[in-house]
Amino acid sequence: MQPTPPSATAALPRRVVVREMGLRDGLQSVATLVPTAAKIEWVRAAYDAGEREIEVGSFVPPKLLPQLADTAEVLAFAQTLPGLRATVLVPNLKGAQRALEAKAEMMLLPLSASHAHSLANLRKTPDDVVAEIARIRAERDASGAKTRIEVGISTAFGCTIQGEVAPGEVVRLVQAVLDLGVDAVSLADTVGYADPAMVSRLFERVLKVAGDKLAAGHFHDTRGLGLANCYAALQLGIARLDACSAGIGGCPHAPGASGNVATEDLTYMLHSMSVETGLDFDKLLALRAKIVQWLAGEPTHGTIWKTGLPKTMKVAAHA
Amino acid sequence: MQPTPPSATAALPRRVVVREMGLRDGLQSVATLVPTAAKIEWVRAAYDAGEREIEVGSFVPPKLLPQLADTAEVLAFAQTLPGLRATVLVPNLKGAQRALEAKAEMMLLPLSASHAHSLANLRKTPDDVVAEIARIRAERDASGAKTRIEVGISTAFGCTIQGEVAPGEVVRLVQAVLDLGVDAVSLADTVGYADPAMVSRLFERVLKVAGDKLAAGHFHDTRGLGLANCYAALQLGIARLDACSAGIGGCPHAPGASGNVATEDLTYMLHSMSVETGLDFDKLLALRAKIVQWLAGEPTHGTIWKTGLPKTMKVAAHA
Repeated sequence: MQPTPPSATAALPRRVVVREMGLRDGLQSVATLVPTAAKIEWVRAAYDAGEREIEVGSFVPPKLLPQLADTAEVLAFAQTLPGLRATVLVPNLKGAQRALEAKAEMMLLPLSASHAHSLANLRKTPDDVVAEIARIRAERDASGAKTRIEVGISTAFGCTIQGEVAPGEVVRLVQAVLDLGVDAVSLADTVGYADPAMVSRLFERVLKVAGDKLAAGHFHDTRGLGLANCYAALQLGIARLDACSAGIGGCPHAPGASGNVATEDLTYMLHSMSVETGLDFDKLLALRAKIVQWLAGEPTHGTIWKTGLPKTMKVAAHA
Repeated sequence: MQPTPPSATAALPRRVVVREMGLRDGLQSVATLVPTAAKIEWVRAAYDAGEREIEVGSFVPPKLLPQLADTAEVLAFAQTLPGLRATVLVPNLKGAQRALEAKAEMMLLPLSASHAHSLANLRKTPDDVVAEIARIRAERDASGAKTRIEVGISTAFGCTIQGEVAPGEVVRLVQAVLDLGVDAVSLADTVGYADPAMVSRLFERVLKVAGDKLAAGHFHDTRGLGLANCYAALQLGIARLDACSAGIGGCPHAPGASGNVATEDLTYMLHSMSVETGLDFDKLLALRAKIVQWLAGEPTHGTIWKTGLPKTMKVAAHA
């Protein structure tokens, strides 16, 4: 038995934003084409359940991801909802131009810390992506748009192609994009390689460089550690966590594996720990049920929908 | 963003014992009668995989739990394996007498912190159970046997019947049985109500009373928080965690829910965090496959068997 450290719960944030990724990270991994009308119903139901940050799609060429070809329409609807921060993923300058034209409030630019993953995914080295981000930032500034730029460091905990990703490389890339003046960075365990000790170590290192600009953690539940990893990030004060309704997402390299942390499960954990989210748990479950219908036959995941809340839990609507 | 606390991983134990509960907590919850020969094969395979603490059964009346009627035979076999600590669950003095006759190295006595659960499960109030534990301890001392006594505080985080269980009641019961001179106590989330913040708070409180005598944490994965809860206990230096191969166990009140934390999943998390277990991961997976066969048709659980280890992980056999 080692000496008892200071209370492990002392540093949990009082309030956490659960950022919904289902419409992008989720749907890009499934074959089913969800109709635009259903996506709009999804955004409306998520908003009604209290979600205020939603990644609604990706400005990639429709040929590459036909599932997300209607991103502009979904974004336009999301922009009608007061107080909703709708985010779009943008892989390059051309996508950024579309996001700026659409006056997206926020664009999320992926930057893979794995050299091999970066080449496979974007056909660019990480440093080439950093150079593209510089161009995107300049374009944003020249456009006069107020679109915020978040860089999501993907494969930050390892990569199915390359294997190890050096934490120092993650820190170097974070520093590089902060030097370019991006508004925020986040760390993503794209392939489900992280464990909570790795999360603690890497977030601790990146916090020293990025401080408050380290805006979010993005965890996949591929190997069952998604919620433990979220908890480790929460312990370092990270107050924004990505999740997908019904745990969709997944990893093409691990068939049958869970995808992103399920929104409902993460919300349950947070509410159980008395961390406010503003989310209505029952409405999240109702939305999950709709998504399962829209994705009929596709694998969905998550746990709490099967068992229900503990008898002891009083989950306030819009806590 | 709150201030960064001291490194959250600093206190993880260097080495952790994964205590196998599948033959008791697992099998008592399934309808299938696993033949004694298969149980012996299970114990042998678990031992060969490096397991050194195994709960082999329960000395309850065979009419109540026919699945565990052969506990004495399984125990006798386990006692032939050098260095294996075979544990038996004992619900009352009569069971304890059988355990002492069998010269069990350790008996685990359940003491429910929920008054309602205690009445439903053992037809005794918690204080009546404490009185029975006093008789068991006296019987043990009079017998001259070296059988160690661990009291497992069940429903320590809440109860499906009663709802809330006051942490102060858990502390009171721990103090009461320590005053009786038991060798160890452990805390169990019998129904899967715990979250990692609750685990931190309750273990921290009980450590102040019990110190090194707080020997283990026992977590169910009913609502998906099992591994996060294990991580929270590890952060407080808890170096013995209960688990069931193939995640069997479960809760009769939550059909379809996962059971105990899966031995393979917990081992993966520990090895990933460079915590030694002495376990051979591949052999654990092979044992899991056998158990799934023995329990053909029964629900089994767990995650890592589906996806395999990350490419980055070098899991040393008998690390």
